[in-house]
Amino acid sequence: MIPPLLYASTHHSADMLYFGRVEVHDPFLAFGLPGGRKVTLQSALEFGRVKKTGGFDRVLPLEAWRTQAKARYGPKAGLAETIATVTRAHGVRRFRVPDDFPALLYVKLTKLGLKLDLAGGMLFPEREIKSAAEAAAVREGNRLCSVGFKVVEAMLRSARIKGRTLMHRGQILTSERLRFALETAIREQGGDPRDTIVAGGDQACDPHERGSGPLRPHELIIVDVFPRVLRTGYHGDMTRTYLKGRPREVQRRMVGTVREAQKRALRAIRAGVDGREVHRVVTDCFEDAGYETRQEKSGAVGFFHGTGHGLGLEVHDPGRISPLVATPLKKGAVLTVEPGLYYPGLGGCRWEDVVHVTATGSTMLSRHPYQWEIR
Amino acid sequence: MIPPLLYASTHHSADMLYFGRVEVHDPFLAFGLPGGRKVTLQSALEFGRVKKTGGFDRVLPLEAWRTQAKARYGPKAGLAETIATVTRAHGVRRFRVPDDFPALLYVKLTKLGLKLDLAGGMLFPEREIKSAAEAAAVREGNRLCSVGFKVVEAMLRSARIKGRTLMHRGQILTSERLRFALETAIREQGGDPRDTIVAGGDQACDPHERGSGPLRPHELIIVDVFPRVLRTGYHGDMTRTYLKGRPREVQRRMVGTVREAQKRALRAIRAGVDGREVHRVVTDCFEDAGYETRQEKSGAVGFFHGTGHGLGLEVHDPGRISPLVATPLKKGAVLTVEPGLYYPGLGGCRWEDVVHVTATGSTMLSRHPYQWEIR
Repeated sequence: MIPPLLYASTHHSADMLYFGRVEVHDPFLAFGLPGGRKVTLQSALEFGRVKKTGGFDRVLPLEAWRTQAKARYGPKAGLAETIATVTRAHGVRRFRVPDDFPALLYVKLTKLGLKLDLAGGMLFPEREIKSAAEAAAVREGNRLCSVGFKVVEAMLRSARIKGRTLMHRGQILTSERLRFALETAIREQGGDPRDTIVAGGDQACDPHERGSGPLRPHELIIVDVFPRVLRTGYHGDMTRTYLKGRPREVQRRMVGTVREAQKRALRAIRAGVDGREVHRVVTDCFEDAGYETRQEKSGAVGFFHGTGHGLGLEVHDPGRISPLVATPLKKGAVLTVEPGLYYPGLGGCRWEDVVHVTATGSTMLSRHPYQWEIR
Repeated sequence: MIPPLLYASTHHSADMLYFGRVEVHDPFLAFGLPGGRKVTLQSALEFGRVKKTGGFDRVLPLEAWRTQAKARYGPKAGLAETIATVTRAHGVRRFRVPDDFPALLYVKLTKLGLKLDLAGGMLFPEREIKSAAEAAAVREGNRLCSVGFKVVEAMLRSARIKGRTLMHRGQILTSERLRFALETAIREQGGDPRDTIVAGGDQACDPHERGSGPLRPHELIIVDVFPRVLRTGYHGDMTRTYLKGRPREVQRRMVGTVREAQKRALRAIRAGVDGREVHRVVTDCFEDAGYETRQEKSGAVGFFHGTGHGLGLEVHDPGRISPLVATPLKKGAVLTVEPGLYYPGLGGCRWEDVVHVTATGSTMLSRHPYQWEIR
């Protein structure tokens, strides 16, 4: 196996965090050796911390290697020459690099004689398979989602319906207020939630809409939250749907159908099953119940996204449950299961949970009630 | 001027946000035309929003252009072929690209006949010069910093000294609690603070240390906060130093000297002055007062970082006040001014404000008192 070489910050590269197991916010060099050992070059500012807490076998001082590079290549030697010097000293001249490796560095290193193979896909395909410790880290992320949902439920419960608005502590209840309260509760417990969706009514029919403005009584509200656990870097990702007031029968039926589709998908999951089959279980359930998916002028309606995706160091980690390509689910994969239905006028509903795939089925990594009616 | 071509999300590329003036969280294509007009390719999910709110002259549908690429290059045509097709249709074959352009795309586009010039530095050097609107956006970021400082001051004021700890509402006051309260207040007003430093005692002597654990009475506490204003994408960046309890005379003298150095640096700033001269004003002030900068076994002590940096869409935007290279300050640059002194045993102190450089001096873009003693 050709060893990897990366140059990135862990802010921008989950591969780097996976490789080195330590957060560093400025771009840095890391590479593997043919035997599997891991090497990194760190500035004086980060050296001690990375050495103490990171997963590298060898942490080398950037400044000293830059001096060596200058001795070899002259006083103008920079980053590329330093990388060439340190990799040569380790006897490795060929590496695989991620597709988003910086182009300037790619060109310079190639000129300096390194052979760089672009991954043309995942740099670490093994990232799809999660250990027990990784699954536990995702479970913690989902616990934080549940913490957030409890805040949402308490606020909706104590809100008063006043005509077409919801009043909470004397103020109009908006997506923004609900999001802020939910995110604050998650942050308080060590999570970093970003771009949380709190979308009511027709806003919830556009999956890229985060939601804004007053929330309405008697309308479905989708709350989709995917916090990062700061201690580990792993994410949770769950969605619950709510309605404050009195649901119409059509809303009740839609919410029940989505939950039924989710249950069936969960039962269909086990290692080796084609993700397309799991997705078909969902679309069959919707079609049997009369929920059509179609393109309208305003956009798609019905069920028009994938059933699930991998979850880990990224919210969209390797792994997929989608109709697009044949993908046998892998033992050890951590996947979201999130069917939904969206019809402007009626609103949107999505239930999202997370599983760890086993040989015979799956283990739930998320837990929170499905009580959506709030009076 | 060779027009630019970018492929990135605005999460990862401030250049992209600068170019298109709209946030898009998945990577997308944008390029310029020789006359200066701006073109982008957007998926159906983002098309409407980008067209409505972005700064592009032409927003094109990704799906339709992918279909065109398949017609030309065959059914396997992907992103690179789509980019080749849409740029060819606009009659442009040569672009400049950022140094961190994705290497795989660089290689593929080059093979498809595009000529890509790596910037070899800033893609948009003009980003260093800020308009009045940009300066106002930075000022708003700094207003949020001040909101945070007020929370810190209120908490320190109401804290009780109990031996070596500070008690606040019955609990030990830690860096984490102070940071959480500060960041929550900033978020409530539309800011996104990240990695805020709240570091007391010797922790404050390592500029990369964010601070953790109980804060001590009678020790200096550095609070450095650099929130992003969500509405505009621009940052504030300010630092204040505090001490709860009774300062020793050596602490008082150090804090006063750093403030004096900052005042002198502020007076030295105007367009055309070499940044090294401004930095020297600071080092002279410290040396005259007897504060030595030197390397010790545990690390550097004294004043061992730059005096300032550009501030804008990134916390470290183009522009610098440092001893390293000759850099005449530019009219319209927005720069931090942040001298500091750090001596383990004594603690650290830093004052940081922000200016907009003018022909004859500078305009302050930050405002908050310098009262650091809290009884």
